[in-house]
Amino acid sequence: MTTPLSYQTQYLQKIRQINPLVHNITNIVAANFSANGLLALGASPIMAAAIEEMETVPQLSSAVVINIGTLIGKEVEAMLLAGKTANCLGIPVVLDPVGVGATPFRRQTVEKLLSEIQFTAIRGNAGELATLANVDWHAKGVDAGEGSHSLQEIAQIVAKKYHTIAAISGETDVISDGSRTALLQNGTPMFPKTTASGCLLSAICGAFLAVADKKETFAALIEAFTVYAVAGELAAQTLRPTQHGQFAVNLLDQLGEITPEQVTKRAKVAYV
Amino acid sequence: MTTPLSYQTQYLQKIRQINPLVHNITNIVAANFSANGLLALGASPIMAAAIEEMETVPQLSSAVVINIGTLIGKEVEAMLLAGKTANCLGIPVVLDPVGVGATPFRRQTVEKLLSEIQFTAIRGNAGELATLANVDWHAKGVDAGEGSHSLQEIAQIVAKKYHTIAAISGETDVISDGSRTALLQNGTPMFPKTTASGCLLSAICGAFLAVADKKETFAALIEAFTVYAVAGELAAQTLRPTQHGQFAVNLLDQLGEITPEQVTKRAKVAYV
Amino acid sequence: MTTPLSYQTQYLQKIRQINPLVHNITNIVAANFSANGLLALGASPIMAAAIEEMETVPQLSSAVVINIGTLIGKEVEAMLLAGKTANCLGIPVVLDPVGVGATPFRRQTVEKLLSEIQFTAIRGNAGELATLANVDWHAKGVDAGEGSHSLQEIAQIVAKKYHTIAAISGETDVISDGSRTALLQNGTPMFPKTTASGCLLSAICGAFLAVADKKETFAALIEAFTVYAVAGELAAQTLRPTQHGQFAVNLLDQLGEITPEQVTKRAKVAYV
Repeated sequence: MTTPLSYQTQYLQKIRQINPLVHNITNIVAANFSANGLLALGASPIMAAAIEEMETVPQLSSAVVINIGTLIGKEVEAMLLAGKTANCLGIPVVLDPVGVGATPFRRQTVEKLLSEIQFTAIRGNAGELATLANVDWHAKGVDAGEGSHSLQEIAQIVAKKYHTIAAISGETDVISDGSRTALLQNGTPMFPKTTASGCLLSAICGAFLAVADKKETFAALIEAFTVYAVAGELAAQTLRPTQHGQFAVNLLDQLGEITPEQVTKRAKVAYV
Repeated sequence: MTTPLSYQTQYLQKIRQINPLVHNITNIVAANFSANGLLALGASPIMAAAIEEMETVPQLSSAVVINIGTLIGKEVEAMLLAGKTANCLGIPVVLDPVGVGATPFRRQTVEKLLSEIQFTAIRGNAGELATLANVDWHAKGVDAGEGSHSLQEIAQIVAKKYHTIAAISGETDVISDGSRTALLQNGTPMFPKTTASGCLLSAICGAFLAVADKKETFAALIEAFTVYAVAGELAAQTLRPTQHGQFAVNLLDQLGEITPEQVTKRAKVAYV
Repeated sequence: MTTPLSYQTQYLQKIRQINPLVHNITNIVAANFSANGLLALGASPIMAAAIEEMETVPQLSSAVVINIGTLIGKEVEAMLLAGKTANCLGIPVVLDPVGVGATPFRRQTVEKLLSEIQFTAIRGNAGELATLANVDWHAKGVDAGEGSHSLQEIAQIVAKKYHTIAAISGETDVISDGSRTALLQNGTPMFPKTTASGCLLSAICGAFLAVADKKETFAALIEAFTVYAVAGELAAQTLRPTQHGQFAVNLLDQLGEITPEQVTKRAKVAYV
């Protein structure tokens, strides 16, 4: 692994200046937390999932984030329409394939979404992206699990297979566009103990992509992950490791508070 | 604008004595926060949206609050039935037309609700009520935006058009029954950065209407807004302006804590 | 009532070692809080309600928790399938009959669930279990209310009628398997003012049942209730009685923090 370079944020302040509208189709667990996290960061969330407005809401928005966390079946048509509309408009679309390895229904749903929508990025945990990469992996429900391939290999396979940026969150975050891969060592063990913290990160990826140039999506995702992970470190630093309730509160505070300087100082980004 | 009069609460303690049951049909972002806010204030929330129980739940309740935040289409029939039942029973009904200007689907939904239900009050932000007033306005997704008419004019137009009380929340809150209009200068900039804080205010309007005499709905809404805005001031006063996570927690605390004396002391209500 | 015995936890540490996967079909108010509470305690939540995955998710899980809080009608088929699958697999199933006395629709739904699924436990408040026991009771919406029979009688009737463990939460918690009945005097008045605190307790019952021997379900439920009630006491002890927002945060913290020693020291469990 290359020595970490000094890291500079490009997009955090731009989100706070532009307040991009981010359209979220998300689940009943994450809806409140994702909306509050986007607001705290400086973006404007719109949560909408009616098929009747899946052509209009993306038109108002600068990014669309599709999260399959608590499907009850019929939202899939709405997701397809929103994603295809975003593709037509040329705005970024993020997929969060929550628990895709857990059930055939989720796998089929994600396959359908991937076959009809060109995603700018796919954000998930190791188990979810291992499922998309079609490699052996032992996931546990919607949690990450462990398996045979390295995270780098998995991210590269998914990025190439779906012509997208694959972004795996975990103890080490791994982001790959298929040729370039970045590793991030920031974060806190409190993230996986906080429900919807992955869903919120996917929403935040949408916010960063919303303000980034199309040629800079790889850099934008690295920044999204780094800002979020450093905000988590700052949120956790005054807490006992069991204070999961207060961590979620502090994380929202830190998403509003965090400065480019703090990110620069703490970032542990390396390229491989 | 008239000099602010000294302001006296009438209904806050009554809510805490009676604990009125407030029926909410609401969205996946606001459901938890609205229920907790109503409980903290002293009301009893019931969140129910199945069409099969839309004639029975209003019968148990002292007010119905209809919020269109995250429609997926089919809830509209349930909303219509609940609203019409409330009208038959003579109990107050509040509409929160979340993001009504954002999409034709939301506009049509709200038009249908307004054509079949007589709402006691409509609570929204400036952009939402500008859409109902049919005046030029530049909204942004579900956020407020800005436009051509004064807030007073918008509130008066909506109140007259729908024979209701129109209540706009924002930096200055504006409440009008078409002839009388009140302006409130309380609040905090942390409200618009807290998701569902408008939805919770609509739910709280339901609680105040639930305990008020039918001839006092204008006064009840002014008090709902004032209590909520002062609770927000108290919630924000020990925080940095970026502490959005802690603000939501403190706001729930303050809704339980706030006294008539605190409201009287801080209220900045004027009539025009 | 027998003098409280010294109480020893058996399952709390086992949950933290095994991290059992608990499948929740729950409502839009409770989804986030229940998932965070399970994570804090040491369990792994999976929230899933699509009928297409109601045979597969229970297969991955160690317990299923069915909560009817905000039905919109169609989830009932998914609940039936998940419950019947759990019965086939021999894993525990918990029912939370939220507001079952409030409307005929909820009563019919719960009757259908009870007629097709053998529940390991039913957790509700006094009003809900009084409805299932078919005794006179004055409930208030989804709140507890008061009535003619003693809580012990109600719990015993429900336990015998449905061959289950009936667990009533309230100022005194009452848990009965029909022959044995336990009374718990722990807790805090802040619980009934915190939305979804009952739903979270039901989810936690699922986690305790998930790690308990089938012959120990009565003991497992007593421990679930005791751990939760003591966590509530610890969460409330530094708060003013109106700090409902902070209580919910502290409760999540305490679910992660609480030790067997704290439970043993504070437990007020008696058998009748």
